[in-house]
Amino acid sequence: MTYELYYWPSIQGRGEFVRLALEEAGADYVDVARESKKGMAAMEPLMEKGEHPPFAPPFLKDGDIIIGQTAAILFYLGGKHGLAPKNEAGRLWTHQIQLTIADFVAEAHDTHHPIASGLYYEDQKKEAARRAEDFRDNRVPKFFSWFETILKGNPAGSKHLVGAKITYADLSLFQIVAGLSYAFPKLTKRALRKYPHIAALHDAVAKRPRIEAYLKSPRRIAFNEDGIFRHYPELDA
Amino acid sequence: MTYELYYWPSIQGRGEFVRLALEEAGADYVDVARESKKGMAAMEPLMEKGEHPPFAPPFLKDGDIIIGQTAAILFYLGGKHGLAPKNEAGRLWTHQIQLTIADFVAEAHDTHHPIASGLYYEDQKKEAARRAEDFRDNRVPKFFSWFETILKGNPAGSKHLVGAKITYADLSLFQIVAGLSYAFPKLTKRALRKYPHIAALHDAVAKRPRIEAYLKSPRRIAFNEDGIFRHYPELDA
Repeated sequence: MTYELYYWPSIQGRGEFVRLALEEAGADYVDVARESKKGMAAMEPLMEKGEHPPFAPPFLKDGDIIIGQTAAILFYLGGKHGLAPKNEAGRLWTHQIQLTIADFVAEAHDTHHPIASGLYYEDQKKEAARRAEDFRDNRVPKFFSWFETILKGNPAGSKHLVGAKITYADLSLFQIVAGLSYAFPKLTKRALRKYPHIAALHDAVAKRPRIEAYLKSPRRIAFNEDGIFRHYPELDA
Repeated sequence: MTYELYYWPSIQGRGEFVRLALEEAGADYVDVARESKKGMAAMEPLMEKGEHPPFAPPFLKDGDIIIGQTAAILFYLGGKHGLAPKNEAGRLWTHQIQLTIADFVAEAHDTHHPIASGLYYEDQKKEAARRAEDFRDNRVPKFFSWFETILKGNPAGSKHLVGAKITYADLSLFQIVAGLSYAFPKLTKRALRKYPHIAALHDAVAKRPRIEAYLKSPRRIAFNEDGIFRHYPELDA
Protein backbone atom coordinates (compact mmCIF):
# COMPACT_ATOMS: atom_id res chain seq x y z
CA MET A 1 0.00 0.00 0.00
CA THR A 2 1.33 3.44 -0.96
CA TYR A 3 1.19 6.02 1.82
CA GLU A 4 -0.20 9.44 1.07
CA LEU A 5 1.48 12.29 2.93
CA TYR A 6 -0.39 15.59 3.10
CA TYR A 7 1.72 18.63 3.85
CA TRP A 8 2.59 22.06 2.49
CA PRO A 9 4.47 21.58 -0.77
CA SER A 10 7.05 24.36 -0.46
CA ILE A 11 8.53 23.89 3.03
CA GLN A 12 10.18 21.18 5.09
CA GLY A 13 8.24 22.16 8.21
CA ARG A 14 6.78 19.48 10.43
CA GLY A 15 6.17 17.29 7.39
CA GLU A 16 9.92 16.76 7.06
CA PHE A 17 10.03 14.60 10.19
CA VAL A 18 7.58 12.26 8.48
CA ARG A 19 9.38 12.41 5.12
CA LEU A 20 12.65 11.39 6.79
CA ALA A 21 11.02 8.36 8.41
CA LEU A 22 9.39 7.30 5.13
CA GLU A 23 12.69 7.72 3.29
CA GLU A 24 14.73 5.78 5.86
CA ALA A 25 12.12 3.02 5.78
CA GLY A 26 12.25 2.90 1.99
CA ALA A 27 8.47 3.16 2.04
CA ASP A 28 6.35 3.90 -1.00
CA TYR A 29 4.69 7.27 -0.54
CA VAL A 30 3.14 10.10 -2.47
CA ASP A 31 3.78 13.63 -1.24
CA VAL A 32 0.30 14.58 -2.37
CA ALA A 33 0.36 18.37 -2.43
CA ARG A 34 3.64 18.33 -4.37
CA GLU A 35 2.65 15.64 -6.84
CA SER A 36 -1.01 16.38 -7.43
CA LYS A 37 -2.13 19.20 -9.70
CA LYS A 38 -4.56 20.21 -7.03
CA GLY A 39 -1.80 21.05 -4.54
CA MET A 40 -3.06 21.65 -1.04
CA ALA A 41 -6.66 21.63 -2.26
CA ALA A 42 -6.23 17.85 -2.40
CA MET A 43 -6.24 17.72 1.38
CA GLU A 44 -9.39 19.70 2.02
CA PRO A 45 -11.91 16.87 1.61
CA LEU A 46 -10.01 14.79 4.18
CA MET A 47 -9.88 17.64 6.68
CA GLU A 48 -13.54 18.53 6.35
CA LYS A 49 -15.16 15.14 6.17
CA GLY A 50 -14.64 11.77 7.68
CA GLU A 51 -14.62 10.36 11.15
CA HIS A 52 -11.09 11.40 12.08
CA PRO A 53 -10.49 14.84 10.56
CA PRO A 54 -6.92 16.01 11.21
CA PHE A 55 -6.52 19.36 12.96
CA ALA A 56 -3.71 20.47 10.66
CA PRO A 57 -1.13 19.06 8.25
CA PRO A 58 0.96 16.98 8.22
CA PHE A 59 -1.25 13.97 8.10
CA LEU A 60 -0.75 10.52 6.64
CA LYS A 61 -3.22 8.31 4.87
CA ASP A 62 -2.59 4.58 4.95
CA GLY A 63 -5.54 2.94 3.26
CA ASP A 64 -8.52 3.71 5.46
CA ILE A 65 -6.46 5.12 8.32
CA ILE A 66 -5.80 8.84 8.55
CA ILE A 67 -3.38 10.06 11.23
CA GLY A 68 -2.53 13.62 12.13
CA GLN A 69 0.02 15.08 14.57
CA THR A 70 3.64 14.48 13.60
CA ALA A 71 4.53 12.50 16.72
CA ALA A 72 1.50 10.23 16.33
CA ILE A 73 2.36 9.59 12.67
CA LEU A 74 5.90 8.64 13.66
CA PHE A 75 4.62 6.39 16.44
CA TYR A 76 2.55 4.59 13.82
CA LEU A 77 5.33 4.37 11.22
CA GLY A 78 7.87 3.39 13.88
CA GLY A 79 5.84 0.31 14.73
CA LYS A 80 5.29 -0.69 11.12
CA HIS A 81 8.84 -0.17 9.83
CA GLY A 82 11.07 -1.10 12.72
CA LEU A 83 11.97 2.52 13.45
CA ALA A 84 11.25 2.04 17.17
CA PRO A 85 11.75 -0.81 19.63
CA LYS A 86 9.04 -3.45 19.64
CA ASN A 87 8.58 -3.63 23.40
CA GLU A 88 6.11 -1.24 25.06
CA ALA A 89 8.64 0.49 27.32
CA GLY A 90 10.98 1.17 24.40
CA ARG A 91 8.16 2.38 22.17
CA LEU A 92 6.99 4.79 24.87
CA TRP A 93 10.49 6.07 25.57
CA THR A 94 11.09 6.77 21.87
CA HIS A 95 7.74 8.54 21.70
CA GLN A 96 8.53 10.58 24.80
CA ILE A 97 11.72 11.83 23.16
CA GLN A 98 9.75 12.65 20.02
CA LEU A 99 7.20 14.66 22.01
CA THR A 100 10.04 16.67 23.53
CA ILE A 101 11.42 17.26 20.03
CA ALA A 102 7.94 18.47 19.03
CA ASP A 103 8.03 21.00 21.88
CA PHE A 104 11.47 22.13 20.76
CA VAL A 105 10.24 22.57 17.18
CA ALA A 106 7.31 24.69 18.36
CA GLU A 107 9.69 26.88 20.31
CA ALA A 108 12.02 27.23 17.30
CA HIS A 109 9.00 28.38 15.27
CA ASP A 110 8.00 30.89 17.90
CA THR A 111 11.39 32.62 17.76
CA HIS A 112 10.20 34.32 14.58
CA HIS A 113 6.48 34.21 15.38
CA PRO A 114 6.12 34.90 19.11
CA ILE A 115 2.85 36.84 18.73
CA ALA A 116 0.78 35.21 16.00
CA SER A 117 1.41 32.71 13.24
CA GLY A 118 -1.10 34.64 11.12
CA LEU A 119 1.03 37.81 11.15
CA TYR A 120 4.22 38.43 9.18
CA TYR A 121 7.60 38.26 10.86
CA GLU A 122 7.96 41.96 10.05
CA ASP A 123 4.98 42.66 12.29
CA GLN A 124 6.59 41.00 15.31
CA LYS A 125 10.30 41.63 14.85
CA LYS A 126 10.84 43.36 18.18
CA GLU A 127 9.13 40.57 20.10
CA ALA A 128 11.01 37.99 18.02
CA ALA A 129 14.33 39.51 19.03
CA ARG A 130 13.45 39.08 22.71
CA ARG A 131 12.10 35.57 22.29
CA ALA A 132 15.10 34.46 20.22
CA GLU A 133 17.45 35.70 22.91
CA ASP A 134 15.77 33.47 25.48
CA PHE A 135 15.77 30.59 22.99
CA ARG A 136 19.51 30.94 22.44
CA ASP A 137 20.45 31.50 26.08
CA ASN A 138 18.12 29.12 27.87
CA ARG A 139 16.04 26.84 25.71
CA VAL A 140 18.58 25.43 23.24
CA PRO A 141 21.05 24.60 26.06
CA LYS A 142 18.26 22.94 28.06
CA PHE A 143 17.06 20.77 25.17
CA PHE A 144 20.54 19.97 23.83
CA SER A 145 21.84 19.07 27.25
CA TRP A 146 18.95 16.62 27.69
CA PHE A 147 19.59 14.94 24.32
CA GLU A 148 23.32 14.72 25.07
CA THR A 149 22.57 13.13 28.46
CA ILE A 150 20.33 10.55 26.80
CA LEU A 151 22.94 9.70 24.18
CA LYS A 152 25.68 9.38 26.79
CA GLY A 153 23.45 7.30 29.06
CA ASN A 154 22.10 4.90 26.44
CA PRO A 155 23.17 1.48 27.74
CA ALA A 156 23.25 0.14 24.17
CA GLY A 157 25.77 2.79 23.10
CA SER A 158 25.94 6.49 22.41
CA LYS A 159 25.32 6.35 18.69
CA HIS A 160 21.57 6.30 19.11
CA LEU A 161 19.03 7.87 21.42
CA VAL A 162 17.24 4.56 21.98
CA GLY A 163 18.72 1.07 21.77
CA ALA A 164 21.33 -0.06 19.29
CA LYS A 165 19.48 0.79 16.08
CA ILE A 166 18.16 3.82 14.30
CA THR A 167 14.76 5.11 15.43
CA TYR A 168 12.58 7.94 14.22
CA ALA A 169 13.81 9.93 17.24
CA ASP A 170 17.36 9.85 15.80
CA LEU A 171 16.04 11.05 12.44
CA SER A 172 14.15 13.85 14.15
CA LEU A 173 17.14 14.96 16.19
CA PHE A 174 19.14 15.06 12.95
CA GLN A 175 16.47 17.31 11.46
CA ILE A 176 16.48 19.65 14.47
CA VAL A 177 20.24 20.04 14.19
CA ALA A 178 20.02 20.58 10.43
CA GLY A 179 17.29 23.17 10.91
CA LEU A 180 19.02 25.02 13.70
CA SER A 181 22.29 25.00 11.74
CA TYR A 182 20.44 26.81 8.95
CA ALA A 183 18.47 29.20 11.14
CA PHE A 184 21.01 29.93 13.87
CA PRO A 185 24.42 29.05 12.39
CA LYS A 186 26.50 30.86 15.01
CA LEU A 187 24.57 29.51 17.95
CA THR A 188 24.48 25.96 16.60
CA LYS A 189 28.16 25.80 15.70
CA ARG A 190 29.01 26.82 19.25
CA ALA A 191 26.50 24.40 20.77
CA LEU A 192 27.65 21.39 18.77
CA ARG A 193 31.16 21.78 20.13
CA LYS A 194 29.69 21.44 23.58
CA TYR A 195 27.46 18.48 22.72
CA PRO A 196 29.67 16.15 20.67
CA HIS A 197 27.30 13.16 20.78
CA ILE A 198 24.54 15.21 19.16
CA ALA A 199 26.97 16.40 16.49
CA ALA A 200 28.09 12.82 15.83
CA LEU A 201 24.51 11.58 15.56
CA HIS A 202 23.67 14.33 13.07
CA ASP A 203 26.65 13.42 10.89
CA ALA A 204 25.96 9.69 11.06
CA VAL A 205 22.31 10.09 10.06
CA ALA A 206 23.29 12.30 7.12
CA LYS A 207 25.49 9.46 5.84
CA ARG A 208 22.92 6.70 6.04
CA PRO A 209 22.54 5.57 2.41
CA ARG A 210 18.83 6.25 2.03
CA ILE A 211 19.01 9.57 3.88
CA GLU A 212 22.08 10.68 1.95
CA ALA A 213 20.32 9.88 -1.33
CA TYR A 214 17.21 11.70 -0.17
CA LEU A 215 19.11 14.82 0.92
CA LYS A 216 20.70 15.05 -2.54
CA SER A 217 17.42 14.48 -4.36
CA PRO A 218 14.90 17.11 -5.47
CA ARG A 219 12.51 15.58 -2.94
CA ARG A 220 14.42 17.42 -0.18
CA ILE A 221 13.05 20.97 -0.23
CA ALA A 222 15.67 23.58 0.63
CA PHE A 223 15.32 25.44 3.93
CA ASN A 224 13.67 28.80 3.34
CA GLU A 225 12.04 31.71 5.10
CA ASP A 226 8.53 30.26 4.92
CA GLY A 227 9.30 27.23 7.06
CA ILE A 228 9.89 26.60 10.74
CA PHE A 229 13.67 27.07 10.63
CA ARG A 230 14.23 30.52 9.13
CA HIS A 231 17.51 32.30 8.83
CA TYR A 232 17.07 35.83 10.06
CA PRO A 233 20.64 36.89 10.90
CA GLU A 234 19.41 39.40 13.48
CA LEU A 235 18.01 36.54 15.59
CA ASP A 236 21.28 34.59 15.69
CA ALA A 237 24.26 35.36 17.90
CA MET B 1 1.05 -0.99 42.62
CA THR B 2 0.75 2.62 43.74
CA TYR B 3 1.63 5.15 41.08
CA GLU B 4 3.91 8.03 41.94
CA LEU B 5 3.09 11.31 40.21
CA TYR B 6 5.80 13.96 40.16
CA TYR B 7 4.62 17.49 39.55
CA TRP B 8 4.74 20.97 41.05
CA PRO B 9 2.77 20.91 44.29
CA SER B 10 1.07 24.31 44.08
CA ILE B 11 -0.45 24.40 40.61
CA GLN B 12 -2.77 22.34 38.45
CA GLY B 13 -0.62 22.88 35.36
CA ARG B 14 0.04 19.97 33.03
CA GLY B 15 -0.01 17.57 35.96
CA GLU B 16 -3.75 18.10 36.30
CA PHE B 17 -4.43 16.18 33.08
CA VAL B 18 -2.74 13.19 34.69
CA ARG B 19 -4.46 13.70 38.06
CA LEU B 20 -7.87 13.69 36.37
CA ALA B 21 -7.13 10.39 34.62
CA LEU B 22 -5.88 8.79 37.84
CA GLU B 23 -8.94 10.04 39.72
CA GLU B 24 -11.42 8.85 37.09
CA ALA B 25 -9.68 5.46 37.06
CA GLY B 26 -9.88 5.24 40.84
CA ALA B 27 -6.17 4.45 40.78
CA ASP B 28 -3.93 4.46 43.83
CA TYR B 29 -1.40 7.23 43.50
CA VAL B 30 0.86 9.45 45.53
CA ASP B 31 1.24 13.06 44.44
CA VAL B 32 4.84 12.96 45.58
CA ALA B 33 5.84 16.61 45.78
CA ARG B 34 2.67 17.40 47.73
CA GLU B 35 2.86 14.46 50.10
CA SER B 36 6.58 14.12 50.70
CA LYS B 37 8.40 16.43 53.08
CA LYS B 38 11.06 16.84 50.44
CA GLY B 39 8.63 18.49 48.02
CA MET B 40 10.03 18.87 44.52
CA ALA B 41 13.47 17.80 45.75
CA ALA B 42 12.01 14.29 45.73
CA MET B 43 12.00 14.32 41.96
CA GLU B 44 15.58 15.37 41.37
CA PRO B 45 17.22 11.94 41.64
CA LEU B 46 14.83 10.58 39.00
CA MET B 47 15.50 13.43 36.61
CA GLU B 48 19.25 13.26 36.95
CA LYS B 49 19.87 9.54 36.97
CA GLY B 50 18.45 6.50 35.33
CA GLU B 51 18.06 5.31 31.82
CA HIS B 52 14.95 7.32 30.95
CA PRO B 53 15.34 10.73 32.61
CA PRO B 54 12.23 12.88 32.03
CA PHE B 55 12.78 16.27 30.42
CA ALA B 56 10.39 18.02 32.78
CA PRO B 57 7.52 17.29 35.16
CA PRO B 58 4.93 15.87 35.11
CA PHE B 59 6.22 12.35 35.08
CA LEU B 60 4.77 9.14 36.40
CA LYS B 61 6.51 6.24 38.08
CA ASP B 62 4.87 2.84 37.85
CA GLY B 63 7.24 0.39 39.46
CA ASP B 64 10.34 0.39 37.26
CA ILE B 65 8.75 2.42 34.49
CA ILE B 66 9.15 6.19 34.41
CA ILE B 67 7.19 8.13 31.79
CA GLY B 68 7.36 11.83 31.04
CA GLN B 69 5.34 14.03 28.67
CA THR B 70 1.69 14.42 29.63
CA ALA B 71 0.30 12.90 26.44
CA ALA B 72 2.58 9.86 26.73
CA ILE B 73 1.54 9.34 30.36
CA LEU B 74 -2.10 9.45 29.35
CA PHE B 75 -1.49 7.05 26.48
CA TYR B 76 -0.01 4.63 29.01
CA LEU B 77 -2.75 5.09 31.61
CA GLY B 78 -5.46 4.97 28.96
CA GLY B 79 -4.37 1.49 27.96
CA LYS B 80 -4.12 0.24 31.54
CA HIS B 81 -7.40 1.67 32.86
CA GLY B 82 -9.79 1.51 29.94
CA LEU B 83 -9.64 5.26 29.35
CA ALA B 84 -9.06 4.74 25.63
CA PRO B 85 -10.31 2.25 23.05
CA LYS B 86 -8.44 -1.03 22.92
CA ASN B 87 -8.04 -1.19 19.15
CA GLU B 88 -5.00 0.49 17.58
CA ALA B 89 -6.95 2.94 15.40
CA GLY B 90 -9.01 4.13 18.37
CA ARG B 91 -5.98 4.43 20.63
CA LEU B 92 -4.17 6.51 18.02
CA TRP B 93 -7.16 8.74 17.39
CA THR B 94 -7.57 9.43 21.11
CA HIS B 95 -3.87 10.19 21.33
CA GLN B 96 -4.04 12.49 18.32
CA ILE B 97 -6.76 14.52 20.01
CA GLN B 98 -4.66 14.65 23.18
CA LEU B 99 -1.65 15.94 21.25
CA THR B 100 -3.80 18.70 19.83
CA ILE B 101 -4.99 19.51 23.35
CA ALA B 102 -1.31 19.68 24.38
CA ASP B 103 -0.68 22.23 21.64
CA PHE B 104 -3.69 24.22 22.82
CA VAL B 105 -2.40 24.17 26.42
CA ALA B 106 1.02 25.42 25.31
CA GLU B 107 -0.66 28.29 23.45
CA ALA B 108 -2.81 29.13 26.49
CA HIS B 109 0.39 29.33 28.54
CA ASP B 110 2.08 31.56 26.00
CA THR B 111 -0.70 34.16 26.23
CA HIS B 112 0.89 35.33 29.48
CA HIS B 113 4.45 34.24 28.65
CA PRO B 114 4.99 34.94 24.95
CA ILE B 115 8.66 35.88 25.38
CA ALA B 116 10.19 33.64 28.04
CA SER B 117 8.88 31.31 30.71
CA GLY B 118 11.81 32.38 32.89
CA LEU B 119 10.64 36.02 32.98
CA TYR B 120 7.74 37.41 35.00
CA TYR B 121 4.46 38.25 33.33
CA GLU B 122 5.11 41.87 34.29
CA ASP B 123 8.19 41.82 32.08
CA GLN B 124 6.21 40.78 28.98
CA LYS B 125 2.80 42.40 29.48
CA LYS B 126 2.78 44.33 26.24
CA GLU B 127 3.67 41.26 24.21
CA ALA B 128 1.14 39.22 26.18
CA ALA B 129 -1.63 41.63 25.25
CA ARG B 130 -0.88 41.13 21.55
CA ARG B 131 -0.55 37.37 21.81
CA ALA B 132 -3.75 37.05 23.87
CA GLU B 133 -5.67 38.99 21.25
CA ASP B 134 -4.64 36.49 18.59
CA PHE B 135 -5.45 33.62 20.94
CA ARG B 136 -8.96 34.99 21.54
CA ASP B 137 -9.69 35.93 17.94
CA ASN B 138 -8.10 33.06 16.04
CA ARG B 139 -6.75 30.21 18.09
CA VAL B 140 -9.60 29.47 20.52
CA PRO B 141 -12.17 29.47 17.70
CA LYS B 142 -9.95 27.17 15.61
CA PHE B 143 -9.42 24.64 18.40
CA PHE B 144 -12.98 24.79 19.72
CA SER B 145 -14.47 24.43 16.30
CA TRP B 146 -12.37 21.29 15.74
CA PHE B 147 -13.47 19.71 19.04
CA GLU B 148 -17.10 20.57 18.31
CA THR B 149 -16.81 18.98 14.86
CA ILE B 150 -15.39 15.81 16.38
CA LEU B 151 -18.14 15.61 18.99
CA LYS B 152 -20.83 16.18 16.39
CA GLY B 153 -19.30 13.65 14.02
CA ASN B 154 -18.66 10.87 16.54
CA PRO B 155 -20.62 7.93 15.11
CA ALA B 156 -21.09 6.53 18.63
CA GLY B 157 -22.79 9.72 19.81
CA SER B 158 -21.93 13.31 20.64
CA LYS B 159 -21.38 12.83 24.35
CA HIS B 160 -17.78 11.78 23.91
CA LEU B 161 -14.89 12.67 21.65
CA VAL B 162 -14.09 9.02 20.95
CA GLY B 163 -16.49 6.08 21.03
CA ALA B 164 -19.34 5.61 23.48
CA LYS B 165 -17.33 5.78 26.71
CA ILE B 166 -15.21 8.25 28.59
CA THR B 167 -11.59 8.59 27.51
CA TYR B 168 -8.71 10.67 28.82
CA ALA B 169 -9.34 13.02 25.88
CA ASP B 170 -12.77 13.88 27.33
CA LEU B 171 -11.19 14.53 30.74
CA SER B 172 -8.58 16.76 29.13
CA LEU B 173 -11.14 18.73 27.15
CA PHE B 174 -13.04 19.25 30.40
CA GLN B 175 -9.85 20.62 31.95
CA ILE B 176 -9.20 22.98 29.05
CA VAL B 177 -12.72 24.39 29.37
CA ALA B 178 -12.37 24.71 33.15
CA GLY B 179 -9.02 26.46 32.77
CA LEU B 180 -10.17 28.82 30.04
CA SER B 181 -13.32 29.63 32.04
CA TYR B 182 -11.06 30.74 34.87
CA ALA B 183 -8.49 32.58 32.77
CA PHE B 184 -10.71 34.09 30.08
CA PRO B 185 -14.23 34.13 31.54
CA LYS B 186 -15.73 36.56 29.02
CA LEU B 187 -14.23 34.83 26.02
CA THR B 188 -15.13 31.35 27.22
CA LYS B 189 -18.72 32.18 28.13
CA ARG B 190 -19.25 33.55 24.64
CA ALA B 191 -17.48 30.58 23.02
CA LEU B 192 -19.44 27.93 24.90
CA ARG B 193 -22.71 29.35 23.59
CA LYS B 194 -21.37 28.73 20.11
CA TYR B 195 -20.05 25.24 20.84
CA PRO B 196 -22.83 23.52 22.80
CA HIS B 197 -21.38 20.01 22.56
CA ILE B 198 -18.17 21.15 24.24
CA ALA B 199 -20.18 22.85 26.98
CA ALA B 200 -22.26 19.71 27.51
CA LEU B 201 -19.17 17.52 27.69
CA HIS B 202 -17.60 19.82 30.28
CA ASP B 203 -20.72 19.69 32.45
CA ALA B 204 -21.09 15.92 32.12
CA VAL B 205 -17.49 15.25 33.11
CA ALA B 206 -17.83 17.54 36.15
CA LYS B 207 -20.74 15.37 37.31
CA ARG B 208 -19.05 12.01 37.00
CA PRO B 209 -19.01 10.66 40.56
CA ARG B 210 -15.25 10.30 40.97
CA ILE B 211 -14.50 13.60 39.23
CA GLU B 212 -17.16 15.42 41.24
CA ALA B 213 -15.70 14.05 44.47
CA TYR B 214 -12.20 14.99 43.36
CA LEU B 215 -13.15 18.54 42.42
CA LYS B 216 -14.65 19.05 45.88
CA SER B 217 -11.67 17.53 47.67
CA PRO B 218 -8.51 19.32 48.86
CA ARG B 219 -6.62 17.29 46.25
CA ARG B 220 -7.92 19.70 43.60
CA ILE B 221 -5.63 22.72 43.76
CA ALA B 222 -7.42 25.99 43.01
CA PHE B 223 -6.54 27.81 39.80
CA ASN B 224 -4.03 30.54 40.50
CA GLU B 225 -1.65 32.96 38.84
CA ASP B 226 1.33 30.58 38.96
CA GLY B 227 -0.25 27.98 36.72
CA ILE B 228 -0.97 27.68 33.02
CA PHE B 229 -4.46 29.18 33.16
CA ARG B 230 -4.06 32.58 34.80
CA HIS B 231 -6.74 35.20 35.20
CA TYR B 232 -5.31 38.52 34.08
CA PRO B 233 -8.45 40.56 33.32
CA GLU B 234 -6.57 42.73 30.83
CA LEU B 235 -6.00 39.67 28.60
CA ASP B 236 -9.68 38.72 28.45
CA ALA B 237 -12.32 40.37 26.29
